[in-house]
Amino acid sequence: MANPYLKQYLMTAGPTPLPPAVSQAMAQPMLYHRAPAFVEVYARVLDRLKAVFATGNDVLVFSSSGSGAMESAVANLVRPGDPALVASCGKFGERWAELCDAYGGRTEHWRTEWGRKVDPGELDRVLREQDGIETIFTTLCETSTGVVNDVRALTDVAHRHGALIAVDAVSALGAVPLPQDEWGVDVVVAGSQKALMSPPGLGFASPNDAALERAAAAAGGRYYFDWARALAGQRKDPPDSPFTPAVGLVQALDVALGLIAAEGLDQVFERHRLLGRAAREAARALDLELLGETDENANVVTAIRLPDEIDGAAVPRVMRDRYGVTIAGGQGRLKGKIARIAHCGYFGAFDIVVSVAALEMTLTELGHEVELGVGAAAAQRVFVEAGVPIASPA
Amino acid sequence: MANPYLKQYLMTAGPTPLPPAVSQAMAQPMLYHRAPAFVEVYARVLDRLKAVFATGNDVLVFSSSGSGAMESAVANLVRPGDPALVASCGKFGERWAELCDAYGGRTEHWRTEWGRKVDPGELDRVLREQDGIETIFTTLCETSTGVVNDVRALTDVAHRHGALIAVDAVSALGAVPLPQDEWGVDVVVAGSQKALMSPPGLGFASPNDAALERAAAAAGGRYYFDWARALAGQRKDPPDSPFTPAVGLVQALDVALGLIAAEGLDQVFERHRLLGRAAREAARALDLELLGETDENANVVTAIRLPDEIDGAAVPRVMRDRYGVTIAGGQGRLKGKIARIAHCGYFGAFDIVVSVAALEMTLTELGHEVELGVGAAAAQRVFVEAGVPIASPA
Repeated sequence: MANPYLKQYLMTAGPTPLPPAVSQAMAQPMLYHRAPAFVEVYARVLDRLKAVFATGNDVLVFSSSGSGAMESAVANLVRPGDPALVASCGKFGERWAELCDAYGGRTEHWRTEWGRKVDPGELDRVLREQDGIETIFTTLCETSTGVVNDVRALTDVAHRHGALIAVDAVSALGAVPLPQDEWGVDVVVAGSQKALMSPPGLGFASPNDAALERAAAAAGGRYYFDWARALAGQRKDPPDSPFTPAVGLVQALDVALGLIAAEGLDQVFERHRLLGRAAREAARALDLELLGETDENANVVTAIRLPDEIDGAAVPRVMRDRYGVTIAGGQGRLKGKIARIAHCGYFGAFDIVVSVAALEMTLTELGHEVELGVGAAAAQRVFVEAGVPIASPA
Repeated sequence: MANPYLKQYLMTAGPTPLPPAVSQAMAQPMLYHRAPAFVEVYARVLDRLKAVFATGNDVLVFSSSGSGAMESAVANLVRPGDPALVASCGKFGERWAELCDAYGGRTEHWRTEWGRKVDPGELDRVLREQDGIETIFTTLCETSTGVVNDVRALTDVAHRHGALIAVDAVSALGAVPLPQDEWGVDVVVAGSQKALMSPPGLGFASPNDAALERAAAAAGGRYYFDWARALAGQRKDPPDSPFTPAVGLVQALDVALGLIAAEGLDQVFERHRLLGRAAREAARALDLELLGETDENANVVTAIRLPDEIDGAAVPRVMRDRYGVTIAGGQGRLKGKIARIAHCGYFGAFDIVVSVAALEMTLTELGHEVELGVGAAAAQRVFVEAGVPIASPA
């Protein structure tokens, strides 16, 4: 049997740790999805999602992973032969291109180097060269590198060229600001298992009227992820769902969204700012390089380059097996090169302290000696100087 | 606040009640889906699913409702213009036709009257008239009427005509026998929230080699539900998933499949036979008509015609609001005409006794007087005469 005193710490950017009240919501007896007891929860969740998306649009709920909600955007906006531009800067951005290809789009995949942001000025140039692009797919936080794009500026450029923009905000919605209506973003896609502090299994898409009109103009080729079908269900009174919803996950999400409402969205973002800053300061104090462009908005996950002289792939393994701290390493071309410390969702000050302390111990064990405690101390200092309680209510 | 002594009884055919051990599995702390602690559970679930499907095929797991798994069958087998035959006998069969239409298939929708079984001899005749049908889509248990089709015979007919057959077994897999390999069924589709005693949110499809070859011959037009992508992930060592799996639901399913393995699949079917028989005997004792064709295999849900002189739509409402017993009424054209008492999954003898007792009380209250206790007594008799313990281990 596993050693119960090797306490386990989940420090990945999805699934993220659950507040105890959210876990407990899942243990309740099952409800019939058309009975008032569930319908009341479902209606409240639909309302609370609008608040987090900062939109008046209906936020469509799919029983799927976040990738399913991404597929809904492509399946509803791109018909075979339609020109689409994917502006990617990492692994999750590439998923948009795979999706557009799968749906037969005339896909233009414009790649920004992993670790750099998608540049709005460059997007403008690309769109001037690529006449007729109807939809742009991009990413709020590229979880594979931690980079957070300037979605507001990218949206302005897209609209100047008459294109719709769909944004994968799966890992970042609820961690960094993305006020959909204020910025005019046409579609925001998210998932339950990141900053929304819920178990994986629910995906969301919030198409505005322009996106819904585009979808309505070309029906077919989709069913489960069809926006019109989901919308028709959710707009009923009381709201319904075309397919049996993942009842337990919706109950869990209701509790999590209640916690976000109680903390207040601005304070949620401020907490993430402190967490991100603390992680970056810790890396700097340890003389470890951050991957690519980071700024005061990069508050979802911090990607730290690992020293060349050690076996980078061993870092997450040793942290987990020896210290019980589960972080993610690099994906794709970054495999073995980075450690990613997450701070999106149910994270507080000591999650950063623990992650950094475990990283220090692991680096030392693997032959890259660091002064133990120096990184953690830098994180502590950020929290002390903030002078505010840093905890999500649970 | 709701009256806590109005104890709640979930008697619907999906979501179905959860064994306490399954509910509790959901309350555990979240796991990273690539950490050994989860991968071990995931691998075991994949093995245990094969046992319930009675197949050597990989059972592909999707984070979706059962309808998502149905979509996977259509998206992987039907290309625009492909001839497909849907053999329906109720609301869920019609979903196959909607899906085939959405994917651009040349859909032949052959409807059997609601409440009757799809007749294998008639299928043979239809296929002789419809040359070139490549795929047949049908249903094991049509949950809207309770009818269970003879999938073995339908499969034989399909194969005689050189067609593949895909069977929606969402509500019935694990309640009535469907040994996929023995019967040679090409694709079986199921969901987590019915006889598999788990929360809604997971869908399954088990394509055989012929179905996988057909899918491989025409790639594209699908992504999230692409079989090849799911298969490639699950066949890795250790098994992986192309998208973040619904971790908590997989943990719950693992516990539920463990209960099924402990009870033994044959005993599970025998228990469902007793439950179904008890429900039918109760209806007969109350002089209530059963909807359409039932036989010793109709052990998923019992559809009982409601007396014409009462407001049928009120029956589920009164049962729920006044007695805390949640059953489903009729769907579509059967709305207000039937009451459906479920017995698939975590159901024991007293679930039938309670459902029938509540129905007796409700009918009396609504003006159709029955002798209270007569239906419940008929159910009791079935269990007494069986002489075996009737309970699923939990």
